[in-house]
Amino acid sequence: MTPGATGAVPIDAQRLTSVVADIFTACGIAAADAQIVAADLVAADLEGIASHGVMLVPMYVERIKKGSVSRRSAGEVVSDRAGAIIIDAGNALGQLTSRQAVKLVVARAREIGLASVAVRNGFHFGTAGRYARMMAQENCVGIVLSNTRPLMPAPGGAEAIAGNNPIAIALPSTGSFPVEADMALSATAMGKIRLAAAAGERIPEDWAVDAQGQPTSDPAAAIKGMLLPAAGPKGFSLAFVIDLLCGGLSGGALGAEVRPLYGDAAEPYRCSHFFLAVHVGHFQPGDQFAGRVRDQAMRASRSKRPAGVERVYAPGELVWATRQASGGVCRLDQATVQSLLDTATRLGLADSESSLLAAKGA
Amino acid sequence: MTPGATGAVPIDAQRLTSVVADIFTACGIAAADAQIVAADLVAADLEGIASHGVMLVPMYVERIKKGSVSRRSAGEVVSDRAGAIIIDAGNALGQLTSRQAVKLVVARAREIGLASVAVRNGFHFGTAGRYARMMAQENCVGIVLSNTRPLMPAPGGAEAIAGNNPIAIALPSTGSFPVEADMALSATAMGKIRLAAAAGERIPEDWAVDAQGQPTSDPAAAIKGMLLPAAGPKGFSLAFVIDLLCGGLSGGALGAEVRPLYGDAAEPYRCSHFFLAVHVGHFQPGDQFAGRVRDQAMRASRSKRPAGVERVYAPGELVWATRQASGGVCRLDQATVQSLLDTATRLGLADSESSLLAAKGA
Repeated sequence: MTPGATGAVPIDAQRLTSVVADIFTACGIAAADAQIVAADLVAADLEGIASHGVMLVPMYVERIKKGSVSRRSAGEVVSDRAGAIIIDAGNALGQLTSRQAVKLVVARAREIGLASVAVRNGFHFGTAGRYARMMAQENCVGIVLSNTRPLMPAPGGAEAIAGNNPIAIALPSTGSFPVEADMALSATAMGKIRLAAAAGERIPEDWAVDAQGQPTSDPAAAIKGMLLPAAGPKGFSLAFVIDLLCGGLSGGALGAEVRPLYGDAAEPYRCSHFFLAVHVGHFQPGDQFAGRVRDQAMRASRSKRPAGVERVYAPGELVWATRQASGGVCRLDQATVQSLLDTATRLGLADSESSLLAAKGA
Repeated sequence: MTPGATGAVPIDAQRLTSVVADIFTACGIAAADAQIVAADLVAADLEGIASHGVMLVPMYVERIKKGSVSRRSAGEVVSDRAGAIIIDAGNALGQLTSRQAVKLVVARAREIGLASVAVRNGFHFGTAGRYARMMAQENCVGIVLSNTRPLMPAPGGAEAIAGNNPIAIALPSTGSFPVEADMALSATAMGKIRLAAAAGERIPEDWAVDAQGQPTSDPAAAIKGMLLPAAGPKGFSLAFVIDLLCGGLSGGALGAEVRPLYGDAAEPYRCSHFFLAVHVGHFQPGDQFAGRVRDQAMRASRSKRPAGVERVYAPGELVWATRQASGGVCRLDQATVQSLLDTATRLGLADSESSLLAAKGA
């Protein structure tokens, strides 16, 4: 998660969603689909996860224009055997095929206790936690995995083998905020290393290695090098098996078969996803499980603190609190605003600039 | 994992297994069950994971004697609804109830694609990876979770909220070694902190906090304090949801309802487990998946290395290589050998000492 930069441009979330939806519609995406994708991206900005927010729009648009992201509303179910379903996403927008997967996996889990959907030929789906939370709202434990191209070496190695593949697990709760774990399995995001480079700062030695696999605290060398896994061999081994679960079970791409997100925009990204829903109602009656989840989350949230620590957050609480505190206003950095305006102008959306500028008054 | 101490006492694994099985039999455990548990513990020693090896025997024995571990061979299936099965382990030895769970979960996954078994009133089951690997041998992705009592604070907190709950994921592979992730979610094991204390060494600041939640590099303060999670909020949030998955779905103990393993030996430990099997055959035909797993593992194992790094291991390879290199000989520290002899003597097993001493000639 990258917290939204302070001092950035405030823009009303609803207006921003309209502008972004207009951009996707102008690319030939169906209006209802454009609205869904726009709302998801804006939601990430409201949650303080700018890396998964509207800064992605120009890249999405370029890929739609060049054909590596399709204009389909859904993928195709290519295999359906009880708890095991495979979707070929056909390079459609990940927000659309992931909703399709969530709907299928929850319905099947309600029937037989648990179910899974493996997705191949997928595209970027935003934050994994969003889909896990959707399952949790349906009284399921929601587990969401994805792969990316290799970015991290095996422990001690000098060659990228596994992506910083995300894992999200969300639980039904009777409390006020969703309880979830949601993380990428690198020690940090490349975005933070770029920020350090821009600020002329050194980075901790456990963030990255240089291109030869040697430890480095120089962000420039790290950018040319490889990310290090979270918690060393632990994060690496989890990322490694997630890659195989996603790409292997779906019969899709894994390892270097997944292409760079910001690489050749004409070449499909081809990531794979894995959605798993465990229906709590098959295990425990009523709200018993969700109540225990709330109780534990409150224990974490209210736990004793050492002097100097103002607040302890339960897993999932910070993202929720950030969104609550946003007041429906996104804080975008100037470069992101400019890239949206440029994209809108190139698509012939003459009103967008004034609309965005008006939005700033929020 | 704690690597076996070098310079320790070499003991033939088969003879050691006999001695340990005799100890359990003398406690009233059925002979076949005693053999299984003994073999698992000795296997952990052969794999270099001494913390899960025969050093546990005196604690197991004391708990059997005091009744907090039962002499049952299996738990009771208390709920069975398609992919969702619950076992009440009745405080039986975890190696026995976990085999029961693996058998059930694999059979059900073969029928409907995937299945899960939640276990309540469980006891220590050794290494989680062993059961995940058993599932992988049956062409399933094997996922094994367990909870422990709270040992780690929430990020910034000063109160233990979540255990360093283990997660293991093993994958079918056509290669020579099992491919698996297997980890506890603390940054390090308390055993390593005790070793630092014994050696008079400082510890890294990301290993533990003191009892007030303040950072410390003093192992004595850390032992009185709390373990820190692997990768901070990432490890904490995973451990937190694993606790709820295990205890919540089984209707068993979670959080502080799980008791200290080395606490009152008359009080049941009450941990909860969760076993999940995804049958690969429902997704992909033949050995296609297992072949891709092997290929990626070989890529990791043979990946480029920086100068000075002799060897890179794929996930799961190091445990396998350690066992291969053991030559069937465990290397126990003297204190562990003495505690086994003392335990045997208290149980009236007069032959054990000579048997162990003979075993040393291996």
